[in-house]
Amino acid sequence: MELEFLGTGAGVPAKHRNVSSVALKLLDECNAVWLFDCGEGTQLQILKTSIRPRKIEKIFITHLHGDHIFGLPGLISSRSFQEGIEPLEIYGPKGVEEWVRTSLRISKTHLKYPLKFVEIQADGRIFKDDKFEVYCKKLDHGIESYGYRVVEADHVGELQVEKLAELGIKPGPVYGKIKNGQTVTLEDGRTINGKDFIGETIKGRIVTILGDTRKTNQSIELAMDADVLVHESTFNKDEAKLAKAYYHSTTHHAAQVAKAANVQRLLLTHISARYLGKDVENLRNEAREIFENVRVVKDFDCYDIPLRKKATFD
Amino acid sequence: MELEFLGTGAGVPAKHRNVSSVALKLLDECNAVWLFDCGEGTQLQILKTSIRPRKIEKIFITHLHGDHIFGLPGLISSRSFQEGIEPLEIYGPKGVEEWVRTSLRISKTHLKYPLKFVEIQADGRIFKDDKFEVYCKKLDHGIESYGYRVVEADHVGELQVEKLAELGIKPGPVYGKIKNGQTVTLEDGRTINGKDFIGETIKGRIVTILGDTRKTNQSIELAMDADVLVHESTFNKDEAKLAKAYYHSTTHHAAQVAKAANVQRLLLTHISARYLGKDVENLRNEAREIFENVRVVKDFDCYDIPLRKKATFD
Repeated sequence: MELEFLGTGAGVPAKHRNVSSVALKLLDECNAVWLFDCGEGTQLQILKTSIRPRKIEKIFITHLHGDHIFGLPGLISSRSFQEGIEPLEIYGPKGVEEWVRTSLRISKTHLKYPLKFVEIQADGRIFKDDKFEVYCKKLDHGIESYGYRVVEADHVGELQVEKLAELGIKPGPVYGKIKNGQTVTLEDGRTINGKDFIGETIKGRIVTILGDTRKTNQSIELAMDADVLVHESTFNKDEAKLAKAYYHSTTHHAAQVAKAANVQRLLLTHISARYLGKDVENLRNEAREIFENVRVVKDFDCYDIPLRKKATFD
Repeated sequence: MELEFLGTGAGVPAKHRNVSSVALKLLDECNAVWLFDCGEGTQLQILKTSIRPRKIEKIFITHLHGDHIFGLPGLISSRSFQEGIEPLEIYGPKGVEEWVRTSLRISKTHLKYPLKFVEIQADGRIFKDDKFEVYCKKLDHGIESYGYRVVEADHVGELQVEKLAELGIKPGPVYGKIKNGQTVTLEDGRTINGKDFIGETIKGRIVTILGDTRKTNQSIELAMDADVLVHESTFNKDEAKLAKAYYHSTTHHAAQVAKAANVQRLLLTHISARYLGKDVENLRNEAREIFENVRVVKDFDCYDIPLRKKATFD
């Protein structure tokens, strides 16, 4: 599980920051990549990474501003051109389907795969399978803007092979039953409870990726106890008035949310082109006044999200 | 007058060739830039050039395939963000206005300048001012695809100052009248005809830029006697069947059009990503079997279009 930032700028593309997109790479978990937002040029950025468009199975759109969606029609078309045949699901605010379908109709694009839309009706869970759940909540951005909370299912503990060996229980089909936590009667008549031979459950990871927003409690709820919080930080701490006027956040706002939500790590993105070089370092330093484990991301940064060795929320 | 290629690839962006766009830089002529097609990422390419989005006054769309239009909403939005206030005109097939307006509505983009659309109804002249005329004709591409012929007005010859000096006519307001070709009575009573003191008219330049197409007579008519012809060459000469099936051209098709139209220079673009390195050289060599003055363009190539010293079509 890894985050790869494809665009970390705000509003318009700049030379070294493209507009918004971040990939959640779930290749080990389910051989898929999920995108969050898809600004213009996202498919061009992807060309410079190891991501294959046909592996992208879901795209979550936070809001419909151009710098977050104008890359959708191109990516969708190229995915088909490059022999992607697996379905693609797009989640986002009402309007995303109309726009994408209009784009495909006008450009006479015929896809080789099914395209499904899930337009958000209300805060809550919008996806669930046996490995992940995704929740969304509306943020505070003038137009409908959402944050997403991706929750991985807990990992069953490892089979304690040494403990079984001590009891003289040898590897074989019985290990599978034990690992499933079943009660098993051995050939020698002993009965054992599989649950006694399974290590501690490892808590699933939580990744929270927010759309553009002012500071809001909704963000804190989405980010509660997350392993990673991706939060916009369009302005520095001195520009709180501008941030409020344009429905954005400062470094301090983002750090306050991270702290209140008790996250492990904060990644600041959606950085205005006005901040370059030393100024970017300053953004980080400002955030650290409130929350220690923070980075200002740049295009193509990758962040591994490791499993926590011990369950944290027992 | 200069052409700058912003995207020279076919269908989908590749690492070294973005999708279609070419700028006709008319900075000396009218302090403006005209774009022909606007594939996704065109505004990102522009960031790497000296072109300022607010100088772009007209965009001519050849056809509505995604690789020719998906960069429009982003460029239009950024032009406004970057304080562009001059009107922008977009020419293209029916549908372009619906798509752009839908994109702006859904993304809640409010432009600071007037956006005007001219959807093509039929072959013919679609623009005229005192410096340029633009004609279009429908090509052969399965979907509605147009070629554009930009015709510069003829340049009045230079005032023959030496000839005037020989006759003892000194510089002053009278020179303006003479340059305008007026008949002038001098202070000493002599009457002279301004037309006798003006050098040869210099023919205006002709630039023809075609959309995707099979070989067609319409292309030849659009390109007749042009200084530059920009023609697609999606395939090499051995792939004529593929070219026909997909409504595209080969190197030979493009060169045949250039030859039949008696153009000065042929620039091949819309190059399939299958052709790399030596293969690109081969494309040029193939075209040269038929038409000598030809280049296969690449992204960011610039071609100056000089005035012809002598009128060619007397």
